[in-house]
Amino acid sequence: MSVTVSASVLASALRDFESLLGAERVLTSEDDLQEFRDPFEYAAWDDYTGSAVVMPTTVEEVQEVVRIAARHGVPLWTHSAGRNNGYGGPAPRVKGSVLVSLRRMNRVLEIDEELGYAVVEPGVRWFDLYEAIQAGGHKLMLSVADVGWGSVVGNTLEHGATYLPYGVDMSAQCGMEVVLANGEVMRTGMGALPGSRAWHVYKRGLGPTPDQLFMQSNFGIVTKMGVWLMPQPECYMPLWLRVWRDDDLAAVVDTLRRLSLDGTIAMVPQIINTTLFAAVLSKRSLWYEGDGPMPEDAIDRMARELELGRWMMRFALYGDEAVVDHRFAKIKEAFSRIPDAEVWGTKYAPEDYGRIENPIEQIEAGIPNLDLNQMTGWYSGEKGGHIGFSPVAPLTGADAIALRDLLRGMIQERAGLDYMAALIPMNARSFIHVTLVIFDTENEAQVRGAYDTCKLLVQEAAKQGYGEYRAHLDFMDLASAQYSFGDHVYRRFCETIKDALDPAGILAPGKQGIWPASMRDGGGLSFR
Amino acid sequence: MSVTVSASVLASALRDFESLLGAERVLTSEDDLQEFRDPFEYAAWDDYTGSAVVMPTTVEEVQEVVRIAARHGVPLWTHSAGRNNGYGGPAPRVKGSVLVSLRRMNRVLEIDEELGYAVVEPGVRWFDLYEAIQAGGHKLMLSVADVGWGSVVGNTLEHGATYLPYGVDMSAQCGMEVVLANGEVMRTGMGALPGSRAWHVYKRGLGPTPDQLFMQSNFGIVTKMGVWLMPQPECYMPLWLRVWRDDDLAAVVDTLRRLSLDGTIAMVPQIINTTLFAAVLSKRSLWYEGDGPMPEDAIDRMARELELGRWMMRFALYGDEAVVDHRFAKIKEAFSRIPDAEVWGTKYAPEDYGRIENPIEQIEAGIPNLDLNQMTGWYSGEKGGHIGFSPVAPLTGADAIALRDLLRGMIQERAGLDYMAALIPMNARSFIHVTLVIFDTENEAQVRGAYDTCKLLVQEAAKQGYGEYRAHLDFMDLASAQYSFGDHVYRRFCETIKDALDPAGILAPGKQGIWPASMRDGGGLSFR
Repeated sequence: MSVTVSASVLASALRDFESLLGAERVLTSEDDLQEFRDPFEYAAWDDYTGSAVVMPTTVEEVQEVVRIAARHGVPLWTHSAGRNNGYGGPAPRVKGSVLVSLRRMNRVLEIDEELGYAVVEPGVRWFDLYEAIQAGGHKLMLSVADVGWGSVVGNTLEHGATYLPYGVDMSAQCGMEVVLANGEVMRTGMGALPGSRAWHVYKRGLGPTPDQLFMQSNFGIVTKMGVWLMPQPECYMPLWLRVWRDDDLAAVVDTLRRLSLDGTIAMVPQIINTTLFAAVLSKRSLWYEGDGPMPEDAIDRMARELELGRWMMRFALYGDEAVVDHRFAKIKEAFSRIPDAEVWGTKYAPEDYGRIENPIEQIEAGIPNLDLNQMTGWYSGEKGGHIGFSPVAPLTGADAIALRDLLRGMIQERAGLDYMAALIPMNARSFIHVTLVIFDTENEAQVRGAYDTCKLLVQEAAKQGYGEYRAHLDFMDLASAQYSFGDHVYRRFCETIKDALDPAGILAPGKQGIWPASMRDGGGLSFR
Repeated sequence: MSVTVSASVLASALRDFESLLGAERVLTSEDDLQEFRDPFEYAAWDDYTGSAVVMPTTVEEVQEVVRIAARHGVPLWTHSAGRNNGYGGPAPRVKGSVLVSLRRMNRVLEIDEELGYAVVEPGVRWFDLYEAIQAGGHKLMLSVADVGWGSVVGNTLEHGATYLPYGVDMSAQCGMEVVLANGEVMRTGMGALPGSRAWHVYKRGLGPTPDQLFMQSNFGIVTKMGVWLMPQPECYMPLWLRVWRDDDLAAVVDTLRRLSLDGTIAMVPQIINTTLFAAVLSKRSLWYEGDGPMPEDAIDRMARELELGRWMMRFALYGDEAVVDHRFAKIKEAFSRIPDAEVWGTKYAPEDYGRIENPIEQIEAGIPNLDLNQMTGWYSGEKGGHIGFSPVAPLTGADAIALRDLLRGMIQERAGLDYMAALIPMNARSFIHVTLVIFDTENEAQVRGAYDTCKLLVQEAAKQGYGEYRAHLDFMDLASAQYSFGDHVYRRFCETIKDALDPAGILAPGKQGIWPASMRDGGGLSFR
């Protein structure tokens, strides 16, 4: 899809944006735009760069931005913090789009300690909300993502993972405010009732619930969101499981499923392979200098010397100490059936969270940090990048092994890269196989290999019944095309809603494969 | 809204329905239609009777029913089992609609013991799925509704309550198949990927998730649904809490919130007042013969003699016995701060469920029954009916008292009826105040008083910030009108989607206040 925005149309829209926001909140210089590119794309390709960035700070300004875009027919592409790294960052699907950056719309509007929720604007980062909770002295925990600079709203809208109990089925969100393509402001659920007391405590309204319609889509711009916060438990116990054989993965997954279905483990773990974990802790060149994928013996050496095993699971218990003790014993017993498997952890009371040093144990305690971001330096330090290929599978050992074999084979053989995997169970029944394809962003051949391999993976995984949970800009259309049941009726259903809600097609055209009528051939639902 | 379907149009549509389904699956006689009326409406009013009932048994037949309706412009109104009693039963909003009854589309398509889910058609009742689980020897529990003859799909689509842990936030549903208004079949979430292995284990797809768009709405006809089943816990312990003063409600609710937020109670309780519970166990005339609301001293006598207290809470623990024991002790301690409060319960292992005699304890164990249905006989035995008025509130003692006072006052003073309340916390932060307005269906003045009072309640509760979670046919438009934020933008948003997905307006016009363009003046979202 190549859409061009005429320079004169853009220029007159920019004049309107500037008179609304002032020149300092309308960025157009090449330097300024650099920051809003796909952070890991090979620089010379330049497929997804915006033509300007507008930075509203109020709902009214967002409404007016939308009205200006509609008047001029200029496509917008919204981000919250713009840290959707691995999937294209803040960059737009349509080159030349005007980026709506909500980074400066960053107020924590409310924290309710009694009912356990906060209301935030889209620019609020994990860091910001965590700090607001601390500053207020609230005994509440936020389910945070792996990297603390991301937006609470943005991560939620992209179906992103968080790791505390409310991360299960991404269940923390409750109630939204959305600016629609005609500039109107809508509140979802109970928020549609003026003066409602239940907007952020009950997840539905009277009639259909539209909240999830605004996730991974282009039907509106979310300007407020409720997020549930969990009371600090008497005892928090981060746990680690380590196994030493690659095929132990099957037993790890099957045991985890049983322990999750019966409620013993009630948060979002990660099962991480040696290479990915090593990338957080070290550089590749320490272990292997050759081209092509790292051989098994080097991986085994890393597994031993970094004490990572072939798979590590990070997970945690939360609750009354007596319950945590019971569950820890049960977990140890269950995993003891895997030869040489080890499980360990440390208990913390709320007043001891300051003593937690391990960044992953901080994340599982709701304390955001940036430590995990360094894994992209595996090949090349500062110049490292990654893209994520992330299909969904049932939480069974057989599915875990099948996906590992399929993905590892293609990444090693087609891209010549190392296989880096984190299996993230989003609930007791399914996991997302986050495949981190890490490369040197200044090595064009390596970047090209990574992007091309991901496109093959999208198709090969789909043939096996595994579809992506979230797609990178560069293969959004391809990933969406795999969801083809009934002659792509789901896509045509989305297109029909898109045309109805945004007839001018100004909101994020192409987002997750949903294009407005003006930018596609045919499509939509047909009625006689 | 009065829409009429011309007799000749209807006649030719019926000919097509008959050639599709055979005469025995197209009901038109007055006797047959009786069964599909609002079961509790005063008989002579006859505001909501359908003109025919069609009974498809396959997805293909549902598709063809929709196509026939579109061709003739005949409005349809779908039910699953049609037991939406209290809110209008199977009756349509538009008199003369053709009812699509899915009672005979009643297959349990799959039960997956390893991953803990079933896939059902809409005609599958709680009884049916329970029996299929038992027949297969599966060690799985179904979160059931109060009355076992209802449909699993139908209850889910109406945001109905169920009571086991998966009832919290109505979280059991995963993956749908839907027939759209143009006759196409769509699968949601991972089901849009042909051969997907994750349709019923992961709740979203790639792109926006439409499942909740098909709940409390008229955008499609759901023909399949995944429903999660919980492994039987080592220990199930139904619990009862009884308090003796009406104002103890505040402390009950505040204590429950704390115990729910910290995960001690993780299912859907009910907090029931004396009068409602007495209606399950006895007849009003045993206690009071007078007209008008029962006086306080009669209520106190019932509270003592039936051993109900002024409020009883039904709830339960599920889990390993050690955890249940710990939690029971904690619960006892927490409620002991309310003077004279009592908490008790009995522990059951899975092999002992057959010994459970109390119908509520059966429901909390996932064993469906019909016992609670008899409460409607309070005034008049067999001729009793009820309508539900059910606003949502934050789970705080102050809100519980405020709603009790508002609703009790109006029901007693305006309708002259007894105040019957079940507070149902759908999660740790909110509750639905189900107000059961019970009347003698053959007493026109009493029925009129009940209906009229409910309409007042809709408006008065909304003024206090409490909106309905689900509305009866007779005040659907009024309840919807309360959600008026932004000049009714939520309703206009729904209308815009309705017009796009069902331009002929054949699917359930008026459902939850959503009317197609042909049956309303204006509305929809406006774009320049």
